Amino acid sequence: MKRDEPKRLGLPGGGELSSNESSAAESAKTVTRLDRWLARRIARGMGDPPVNIALWNGEEIYRSPTPRVGRLVFRDRGALWSTVCSPELGAGDAFSAGRLQVEGDLVEVLFNIYTSLDHASINSFKRNLFGRLPRPEPNTRTRSRKHIHHHYDLGNDFYRLWLDEQLVYTCAYYETPDATLEQAQVSKMHHVCRKVLLKPGMDVVEAGCGWGTLALHMAEHYGVNVKAFNISREQVSFARDRAKSMGLDKQVEFIEDDYRNISGSFDAFVSVGMLEHVGPDHYHDLGSVINRSLKADGLGIIHSVGRNRPTAPNAWLEQRIFPGSYPPSLREMLDIFEPFNFSILDIENLRLHYAKTLMAWLARFDDKVDIVRNMYDDDFVRAWRLYLGGCAAAFLSSSIQLFQVVFGYPLHNAIPMTRAHLYRDADAQAWSFDSTL
Amino acid sequence: MKRDEPKRLGLPGGGELSSNESSAAESAKTVTRLDRWLARRIARGMGDPPVNIALWNGEEIYRSPTPRVGRLVFRDRGALWSTVCSPELGAGDAFSAGRLQVEGDLVEVLFNIYTSLDHASINSFKRNLFGRLPRPEPNTRTRSRKHIHHHYDLGNDFYRLWLDEQLVYTCAYYETPDATLEQAQVSKMHHVCRKVLLKPGMDVVEAGCGWGTLALHMAEHYGVNVKAFNISREQVSFARDRAKSMGLDKQVEFIEDDYRNISGSFDAFVSVGMLEHVGPDHYHDLGSVINRSLKADGLGIIHSVGRNRPTAPNAWLEQRIFPGSYPPSLREMLDIFEPFNFSILDIENLRLHYAKTLMAWLARFDDKVDIVRNMYDDDFVRAWRLYLGGCAAAFLSSSIQLFQVVFGYPLHNAIPMTRAHLYRDADAQAWSFDSTL
Repeated sequence: MKRDEPKRLGLPGGGELSSNESSAAESAKTVTRLDRWLARRIARGMGDPPVNIALWNGEEIYRSPTPRVGRLVFRDRGALWSTVCSPELGAGDAFSAGRLQVEGDLVEVLFNIYTSLDHASINSFKRNLFGRLPRPEPNTRTRSRKHIHHHYDLGNDFYRLWLDEQLVYTCAYYETPDATLEQAQVSKMHHVCRKVLLKPGMDVVEAGCGWGTLALHMAEHYGVNVKAFNISREQVSFARDRAKSMGLDKQVEFIEDDYRNISGSFDAFVSVGMLEHVGPDHYHDLGSVINRSLKADGLGIIHSVGRNRPTAPNAWLEQRIFPGSYPPSLREMLDIFEPFNFSILDIENLRLHYAKTLMAWLARFDDKVDIVRNMYDDDFVRAWRLYLGGCAAAFLSSSIQLFQVVFGYPLHNAIPMTRAHLYRDADAQAWSFDSTL
Repeated sequence: MKRDEPKRLGLPGGGELSSNESSAAESAKTVTRLDRWLARRIARGMGDPPVNIALWNGEEIYRSPTPRVGRLVFRDRGALWSTVCSPELGAGDAFSAGRLQVEGDLVEVLFNIYTSLDHASINSFKRNLFGRLPRPEPNTRTRSRKHIHHHYDLGNDFYRLWLDEQLVYTCAYYETPDATLEQAQVSKMHHVCRKVLLKPGMDVVEAGCGWGTLALHMAEHYGVNVKAFNISREQVSFARDRAKSMGLDKQVEFIEDDYRNISGSFDAFVSVGMLEHVGPDHYHDLGSVINRSLKADGLGIIHSVGRNRPTAPNAWLEQRIFPGSYPPSLREMLDIFEPFNFSILDIENLRLHYAKTLMAWLARFDDKVDIVRNMYDDDFVRAWRLYLGGCAAAFLSSSIQLFQVVFGYPLHNAIPMTRAHLYRDADAQAWSFDSTL
């Protein structure tokens, strides 16, 4: 979006605000008292964060009372209004269009804004002028296909630019502080496999398999047979080619179909990074699918972005990046398990691992930014930097969590008594995230 | 309760059922068609379990279609009726009175009955004749004191007969299959301490401290200062003596007070086996107490009996053994955490460890049963065997769970990235519970 196309936001430009001036173009540049009031309102709505806020004429309307980590610059009145009217969607769109600029490190600035937001009033901050909270679109079978196509069929060449070499597009697991992204993705896959006790010859179903990396990893390293479901055509096609080239196409079947159509009987149910796209209205369906397809002595794992408590999804992320997505609280996730009397065995929160993963992706993205710009355009680059950087900041500031939930049927008594087997190769020293950005 | 006191159950004896016979005593012994029908109804209500059911005249009314593991014998009509009218409370009272006998291994028979019960209809099984589900008494401050006194002030000499030598009255943690109860209780305490990252000099608050073993363990092995709360007078008095004799009374303060009166600022909040006595109406209070007393970089752990989904408490256990107790589902437990935006970091289900713990307690209790009978009476012995054996069976059959929930404030980023530090001394081999009883 160019600066001369403010109408694409569907929001008032400058003209209506100062109709007594002769030149609408001139008046759009003039900063009014209302503009200043709106900018201060935005700062207050964010809990007076440690960033300054400037307007298009260079005037700094809000100065952080504490040392600032960056500056937000509204390049025109439309950007200001769209942010006021819709703090997430409007600001995100203005950022993508280059009309709201962030000076300073993007992750650091967003992290500071997120931590500044009073968590108690996050939902009130999210409301638009009409008091409405953003609601994700429901994920019927048809809509799910459209939603998944929107994001995951952007082209494998694009994702290959900045994901790890195996194309794993979910939270990695850093066993040690110096693990590379590649190593951390392999560790994550082992961690998941160990949690569901994979053994040679087992039958595994995977709901939402991305480019097939985990399915192939399970087959190659644990000798299991996998049926892997995904509704992204490009991903499934890529995964099938890969299975053939690895000689694993007898062991791993990639199925282009909805998780609701899973049939068969399996020793393990694995789903990494799909629940975010299921939507809370369909958790009971998902539980029902698991309940009919998991064997009595089977184990399941669901790995998903989540929340500390139910929170409206980020409107910009939901509408521009992941349509239909919704990160649930643990309470909401229990709609999958409680109706079927599943027993929760283990929940691990890997929030800071996803922050690290996203920062690694963003760094790689930035390294390839010229190629991405040639493939798409500046708006696309800005939008994806906001998505990757914003999610990193959201995990760092604990606005979102990453839960791995292991479960089984209540009468399954042959489960491991301790979790020590998950750590047989691990460095036993506790290590903490280095939160200096 | 003696066989000649059936009225104490408040349930009809034999006389009213066959009033046309001349001798009420004779008629009480005669097995009628109604008696047979009731016994079959009981078997059906339990899902036709692998136990036979006999009546007072020796007649086997119900024979298990599969190889049986034991036999239930109703010694009189009152026991039969009380079981029909109130399957948990009535049957439990009849068992305690010796009027409902279990032939065969108590844990094995109860385990088979629990697994036979259709989990989907457990709440309908629990309803009494009037369709009412048992409701626990609310735990106001006054009632809590009464409830805790009922159980925990039975006399330390009694508990010393069958608990481990350190008097730990909560689920143990068996790191290896051959660990003794003593070793497993020590392992549990270390497991809890590691989960909240205790370090020398820290201030810890413990809500519900039993005889003070964990508080003293934390002080002795981790060099922390502890304020430990408990409303059982006998336990607190015992714990204070112990602290003095161990020279730890400067480090550990035992406070005879309600968890709702906790004040101060702490690096760790620890509660092992108290939540069961809090009651869901007070989870918000508990969250509020934690929220006002935990430091920003503190961690908390709540260790509690739980459920796979909300279920009415066992009426007999709730009324005769633990008045006011209620094991919550994870969803219910989230009432503690979600309102205060706590971040759940780790949940571990130790269900089978509690089964092993209870079986160890029951074996020790049975070894000392003559002493217990002398201290109390036969009814007491039977009631406690039913409590210990019934809980062992309930954990084995997954009717109840044991959750350890670790949590912190959302912005606490100095948490360990992996859980490997919990397992530094652990045998890395996975081991499973031996479910052959």
